[in-house]
Amino acid sequence: MAEDFIVTPWEVKGEIDYDKLVERFGTQLVSQEILDRLEKHASPLHHLIRRGIIYSHRDFNRILDDYEKGNGFFLYTGRGPSGDTHLGHILPWILTKWLQDNFKVKFYFQLTDDEKFMFDDGLTREDTKKYAYENMLDVIALGFDPKLTKIFLDTELIHTLYPIAIDVARRINFSKVRAVFGFDSSHNIGSIFYTSMQAVPCFLESVLEGRNIACLIPCGIDQDPHFRIARDVAPLLGYYKPALLHNKLLPSLAGGDKMSASLPHTSVFTTDQPDDVRKKIVNAFTGGRVSVEEQKKLGANPDICTVYHYYMYFFMPEDDELRDIYLKCKGGEILCGECKQILIEKINGFLKEHQQKREEAKDRIEDFILRD
Amino acid sequence: MAEDFIVTPWEVKGEIDYDKLVERFGTQLVSQEILDRLEKHASPLHHLIRRGIIYSHRDFNRILDDYEKGNGFFLYTGRGPSGDTHLGHILPWILTKWLQDNFKVKFYFQLTDDEKFMFDDGLTREDTKKYAYENMLDVIALGFDPKLTKIFLDTELIHTLYPIAIDVARRINFSKVRAVFGFDSSHNIGSIFYTSMQAVPCFLESVLEGRNIACLIPCGIDQDPHFRIARDVAPLLGYYKPALLHNKLLPSLAGGDKMSASLPHTSVFTTDQPDDVRKKIVNAFTGGRVSVEEQKKLGANPDICTVYHYYMYFFMPEDDELRDIYLKCKGGEILCGECKQILIEKINGFLKEHQQKREEAKDRIEDFILRD
Repeated sequence: MAEDFIVTPWEVKGEIDYDKLVERFGTQLVSQEILDRLEKHASPLHHLIRRGIIYSHRDFNRILDDYEKGNGFFLYTGRGPSGDTHLGHILPWILTKWLQDNFKVKFYFQLTDDEKFMFDDGLTREDTKKYAYENMLDVIALGFDPKLTKIFLDTELIHTLYPIAIDVARRINFSKVRAVFGFDSSHNIGSIFYTSMQAVPCFLESVLEGRNIACLIPCGIDQDPHFRIARDVAPLLGYYKPALLHNKLLPSLAGGDKMSASLPHTSVFTTDQPDDVRKKIVNAFTGGRVSVEEQKKLGANPDICTVYHYYMYFFMPEDDELRDIYLKCKGGEILCGECKQILIEKINGFLKEHQQKREEAKDRIEDFILRD
Repeated sequence: MAEDFIVTPWEVKGEIDYDKLVERFGTQLVSQEILDRLEKHASPLHHLIRRGIIYSHRDFNRILDDYEKGNGFFLYTGRGPSGDTHLGHILPWILTKWLQDNFKVKFYFQLTDDEKFMFDDGLTREDTKKYAYENMLDVIALGFDPKLTKIFLDTELIHTLYPIAIDVARRINFSKVRAVFGFDSSHNIGSIFYTSMQAVPCFLESVLEGRNIACLIPCGIDQDPHFRIARDVAPLLGYYKPALLHNKLLPSLAGGDKMSASLPHTSVFTTDQPDDVRKKIVNAFTGGRVSVEEQKKLGANPDICTVYHYYMYFFMPEDDELRDIYLKCKGGEILCGECKQILIEKINGFLKEHQQKREEAKDRIEDFILRD
């Protein structure tokens, strides 16, 4: 029997059963108790949290313990710069921004230009560096606090990162990366080494500050395997295990079993123009019926609709508005064409503002960047 | 049947059959033709070359071609800083100095503090860095031209080295390092990646100068496997394959099958005091007979004698003098005690001067070192 779905840091395939993934990876579901506890410090809860898109964690309780005891923590997430940024990428960044706003904590953003070079023979080092600088603009455009936020490329901060990376690498053998990532003998030795580099920022603040500070990583659930390894190594090096908050992956506009693919026509990129967006959304998979008549009579299915998912993940942060369109869809009161038109306007409104901030970000890189 | 001998960059065991090693590694013996050709440019030939201690090579002909065409070349060798420097370590450095003096070429010396940390759990990063700076003093003390010589630690030049290392790493898979080094799944991912770092200086001058320049590596034959890999990768990245000149390893003072071991009592370290040297040489393995009478009558065997090897490798550069003591030993005209006394004085004379230069080198580090 073929595997029902595959989720690794480099491959997402099939229709993801998120509950099963929690079991497979050995993470915890975000419980009501955690939500209640978080709400005491950060209210109202972000819609990504309220709606269960941030659905799994490791040791998030401990982060709240540390915070309540006054020990503090810091945030870390990142991006593999293999192309332009799409909405799926910025999802954990939006959560990170919300966490920074509410907890006023430091945030490290890693651009793994080395990773993408080593895992993709089609990319040059110049390509991944160029994409890193492009992706960085999207991070800055989201409004992070420059006093608390540091962004870096692996190859540009390597003097600082490499000593920590070899500390980590010495504690991980090939058996381990084979078991966790499914690597075999055909994998190149750069990609085998790489997970050490992704572990480094978990410990960076502790190294730079000279005291042990807990790390919280908001990221897509697909990145969890890297941090499972980092968590195993942490106590051997005298650091706290990094904690994680995992989000579900934004479905592709093709819907169904093609989850979170970065194909140009099924993802919305932050640099898309209004016409690009229009074309993509017009062609998006919905839960609509075969005819207008049937849809008016029987209603449509928002639960499988990518347009509805885009509302839920991004473009209808108000719960009332989201519930309203859900019920209208179910009741046949709105047709897919009309609904798509609403989404196109919302996306283009967001992108217009984001692209403006992205332009401004070009002059603000030096406020954020960390280099050797 | 057990292996007769083992030679890898990290392990030397058994009595080495150097001819067999040339076959096993696929290198070439240094021929009379090469010696004649070399002598045209560098005369007289160094005693290490005349005596066949520099006995094997890869593409050294091509280096001479390039030199004769006016394309030039550069030198590269190095040291894994896991402890103090002993005479066996400086052997290829002495050849390198002779080559630099005769060809007036640039020389890069790599101190692989990352390697030794990743291959030895007993060493901290601070340990290997400390040894690197100690070992560096020995390099400087040998009299290299500061205008043509650059010395660096991997962790201190990593900003420059890492981009080249990942270029290399992407071209080497685990099968390859398993086949070449005998690694298995229990090896840590840092040590698996490491050979990429040792390849980098082969291409460093080409990268820094922006044109393709041939590299010649004088090194112990045990280091050849690293450069076999570097040679495979070079053309894929558009560089010349590095050429090599391999030396036989200095036998340990215990003689026989314990070749080139770095044990404190069977090696002479550059920091040894006269009394240390005396003790070590007095206890050294010789080719002497069981009694003075027998030795006077039958003569001794210099071919298996470590004292004689020390003369041959280091302390009797004059061929007449070496032949004289060889014949005296064979003829029973000199006893081991007397011979050891001569060696002790020669070593201590060398060390006195070397240690003086080593002290002076402490103020000259900045003339040689290359850092990010």
